[in-house]
Amino acid sequence: MVNKILIANRGEIAVRIIRACRELGIRTVAVFSEADRNALHAQIADEAICIGPAPSKDSYLNVKAILAACEVTGAQAVHPGFGFLSENADFAHMCGRCNLIFIGPDPESMELMGDKAKAKKTMKRAGVPVVPGSDGEVKSIEEAKRIAEMIGYPVMVKASAGGGGRGIRKVDSPDKLEAAIYAAKSEAGAFFGNDGIYIEKFIANPHHIEVQVLADNYGNAVYLGERDCSLQRRNQKVLEESPSMLVTPELRKRMGEISIKAVHACGYKNAGTIEYLVDENGNFYFMEMNTRIQVEHPVTELVSGIDIVKQQILIACGEKLPFKQSDITLRGHAIECRINAENPKYNFRPSPGKIESLHMPGGPGIRIDSAVYQGYTIPPYYDSMIAKLIAYAPTREEAISKMRWALAEFLVDGVDTNIDYQLEILKDKDFINAKYDIGFLDRKDFASRL
Amino acid sequence: MVNKILIANRGEIAVRIIRACRELGIRTVAVFSEADRNALHAQIADEAICIGPAPSKDSYLNVKAILAACEVTGAQAVHPGFGFLSENADFAHMCGRCNLIFIGPDPESMELMGDKAKAKKTMKRAGVPVVPGSDGEVKSIEEAKRIAEMIGYPVMVKASAGGGGRGIRKVDSPDKLEAAIYAAKSEAGAFFGNDGIYIEKFIANPHHIEVQVLADNYGNAVYLGERDCSLQRRNQKVLEESPSMLVTPELRKRMGEISIKAVHACGYKNAGTIEYLVDENGNFYFMEMNTRIQVEHPVTELVSGIDIVKQQILIACGEKLPFKQSDITLRGHAIECRINAENPKYNFRPSPGKIESLHMPGGPGIRIDSAVYQGYTIPPYYDSMIAKLIAYAPTREEAISKMRWALAEFLVDGVDTNIDYQLEILKDKDFINAKYDIGFLDRKDFASRL
Repeated sequence: MVNKILIANRGEIAVRIIRACRELGIRTVAVFSEADRNALHAQIADEAICIGPAPSKDSYLNVKAILAACEVTGAQAVHPGFGFLSENADFAHMCGRCNLIFIGPDPESMELMGDKAKAKKTMKRAGVPVVPGSDGEVKSIEEAKRIAEMIGYPVMVKASAGGGGRGIRKVDSPDKLEAAIYAAKSEAGAFFGNDGIYIEKFIANPHHIEVQVLADNYGNAVYLGERDCSLQRRNQKVLEESPSMLVTPELRKRMGEISIKAVHACGYKNAGTIEYLVDENGNFYFMEMNTRIQVEHPVTELVSGIDIVKQQILIACGEKLPFKQSDITLRGHAIECRINAENPKYNFRPSPGKIESLHMPGGPGIRIDSAVYQGYTIPPYYDSMIAKLIAYAPTREEAISKMRWALAEFLVDGVDTNIDYQLEILKDKDFINAKYDIGFLDRKDFASRL
Repeated sequence: MVNKILIANRGEIAVRIIRACRELGIRTVAVFSEADRNALHAQIADEAICIGPAPSKDSYLNVKAILAACEVTGAQAVHPGFGFLSENADFAHMCGRCNLIFIGPDPESMELMGDKAKAKKTMKRAGVPVVPGSDGEVKSIEEAKRIAEMIGYPVMVKASAGGGGRGIRKVDSPDKLEAAIYAAKSEAGAFFGNDGIYIEKFIANPHHIEVQVLADNYGNAVYLGERDCSLQRRNQKVLEESPSMLVTPELRKRMGEISIKAVHACGYKNAGTIEYLVDENGNFYFMEMNTRIQVEHPVTELVSGIDIVKQQILIACGEKLPFKQSDITLRGHAIECRINAENPKYNFRPSPGKIESLHMPGGPGIRIDSAVYQGYTIPPYYDSMIAKLIAYAPTREEAISKMRWALAEFLVDGVDTNIDYQLEILKDKDFINAKYDIGFLDRKDFASRL
C-alpha cells in the first residue's frame, strides 16, 4: 500500500478523497491555488501546497507544479478527482514516468475512450449496442437512403464536423431525406468548411442512464447498478437518482453485463462509468465512457453500500476486488441534488461571494458532500457547485419527501443558490411520477416559476 | 392519519421528530422555553409556541401548558421524545382524556414497566431471563444460604432500600455469606432505616445490550437487532454501537425472540427497548424496558434501514407494521458518539455558551443529528448533548476508522466539548478489539490522557 496520496483537485471532491484516504490510514497532500488558501480541502489535508495563481491553467491544470508537489511531499500516488486533469492521458503517462501511481485507468484506456469515434467502434465490436447509423460518412444519396431504410425512420442527418446544433436535421420519412441531406450539407459547409454528413437513428425522448463499474488489475469486474441522470439543464446534470425507474431488473442485468463486456473490451481498470441513451422501450445505446469518478457517485454508494472512492484507491494500489457480482445487492433509493451558487432567476448566473450564514440539513438518510463553511468566500474562478445534497430512503417516494424537507431546511445567506429551483423539480408531478427524459428540464423551465 | 403533531421536547430529538413528520406530510408544532427562543427546533417547525420559563418544570414538564398548546394549535397528537414527559404515564393518560394521540405505548404498559419490581415479575412469568436471586427479601441466614447455593457463587447481597452503592456486598464463597449479610444489614439499617436485604447472582463484567422492538396495535411485533451500550461514564451512555460484537447470530435470534415475548407479556405497542445485562458467555438477564424512543436509535436505523421515529408515528396513528420479522435484514456496522458541551479535563463540567465557529463532518456514511448551528448559544438549563455523530460502514473496522476522522474534522469553537475524549476511546486498543464491558470507561479514565 502507498502511505501518502496527493489530491490534484479542489472543492467537495478533494474533501471526499481526503476522507477516503484517512479511512484507509493514508496521509494526504492537498494542492491549492492562491484563490483557495482558505478552502476546506487545503485545511483538512495532512499537508497542503500552493501550486499557483487562481486560473486553473496556472494551478489545477499545471502538470509540472503538481508533479513537483508530489516530489516535494513524497506522495506516491495522485488522485485526479473529476474535471481538471482527470481524463488527461498525458498526465497519467507522466505520473507513470515519475513512478507515481495514477489513481484511475491506464492511459491507453483513457486515450481509447477519449476518442469518441474509436470508442464507438470498440464498443460495437464488443457487442455493446451503439446508436445505429452509417459507418462514418455517407457518400451518396443512395447510400443514405439504404441506411435510413435499414435503421428505420425517423433518422438524424448530422454534420461530421458538427457541434452546437448546426448541420443537424431530423428526418421523419423517406421522401424528406434528400432535401434534408442537401440542407445539412450546405449548412455544414458554410459553418465548418466541411460538408461531410453521417446518419444515425433518432432516439425519441431518451433517458441518460449510466452504469457504474469497478474493475481490478486481475480481470475482475462488477457493475453497481445504474444512475438516471436525465435531469440536465443545457447538458449539465442537475439531479441524479439510483435506481432509474425506467430500468427493470432484467434490463439492469442486461445493461450491467454488457457494461462488463465493454470493460473487458478496452482492458479497463479502476472505477468507470458507461453512459447510455435509453428509450422508453428499454433499448439502450452506448454514448461514452467516463474514465474517472463522477460527481453523482454517492447515489450508487448509498444503494450498493460500496465506497467507490476507497475502491479506486485500493484497486490502484494493486488490491483485488473484495466482492463478486453475486455479493452486490442494491437496496433503497437515493437522489442527489447539486447545490450551486448561482441565480436561476438570472439565467443561472454564478454567484460567488461570502457565505454569511450556513445551515445544512442532517438526520436520517441525509448525506452532504460539501467543501464550504460559514464565513467561507466562494471564489469566482471555478464551477459553481458548492455542495451535493443526497437523500437515501427505502423507497423513491420517501427519498423525494426527504429531499424536499432537506432542501427546505438548507439555508445559505450571502450568495444565491439553486435550492429553490431544485425544490420546484422535487414538487413537480411529472418528476414525482418519474415521467421525464433528457429534454425535461429545458421544456419545463422551472426557473420561471421562482 | 393525523395532520398536525406537537413535539413536547427540545434539542436534537425535537428536530429529528420534526423531520420525520415532514416526510410523512404532517405539520408540526414546536414548544419552547423562554431560553430556547433561538433553538433550531423552534425555528424549523411549522408553528412554535413558548410554554414558559427556562426551568424544565415550568416549560417542558409543564403538562398544562403543553396540553394548552395542543388545544391552541389544533395538534391531534403529541410526540414526547425522550426524557421530560416521555415515560410519564399520567401525561399519556391526560393526552388520551384530551383526545390527543400520545405517540408511545398505552399508559398501562408504561406504568407496568416503570415499576421495576412489577416489571421483573412480569418478565419472569413470560419466560424472560432475569438476574437469578431471592424472590424479594431474604428472611433468614438459612434461606440466604439455600438461595445462594441454588444460584451459585459469587452472589450479591443487596439492601432492599439501597442506592448509591450502600448496603451492597459481593460474596465469593459460602463461608463468607453470613458475615456479609450482617454487614450489609447493619449498613442498610444505619443508612436507610431498613435492614431488609435480598440476594442476586453476581454478573461478572457484563455488557449493557438492548434490543429495539416495534409493535403495532394488532399484535404484530418485530425486533431490529441490538445495540451495545456498555460504554458508560457514571451510568451515562457515551458511545453506542450496533451490532454488538458479543452477540452471535444465534444469541441475536434468541434475545430477539424473547424480547418479542416480553412485548406480548405487557401488551406493548409502539417502539420500545428492552435492556439486558449480558455476560461473556452469552447469558442475558432482563434489566428494564424503556417505553420511548432512545438517544441511540440511529445506530439501529442505519443497520436495519428502518426509520424508527416514522414507525412510531405510523403505529400511533393505527397503521399496521409494514414488515414482518423475515423482511428485516441487518447490514453493516454503526457507531454513535454523543457530542456534549462539557470539559472532560474538569470532571466533565458542562460548558454552555456561544458556538463561535462550527464545522461538522459529512460525506459517505456520516449522519449527524444535531440542533446547534454557528452563532447559537447553548443555554445552561438542559443536558449538555449538542449533537450525535453517527458513522456507518460495511464493517466495524471501517466504521471506527470513519468515526475517527469524523471526530477529528468536527470543529467547535466557543464551548468545550468531549470530542477529544471520544477520540481517545476510538484509538484505544481494547475498544478496537471490542474488549469492553460496562466498567470499561470508569476503569480506563481516558479524561486523564487529555
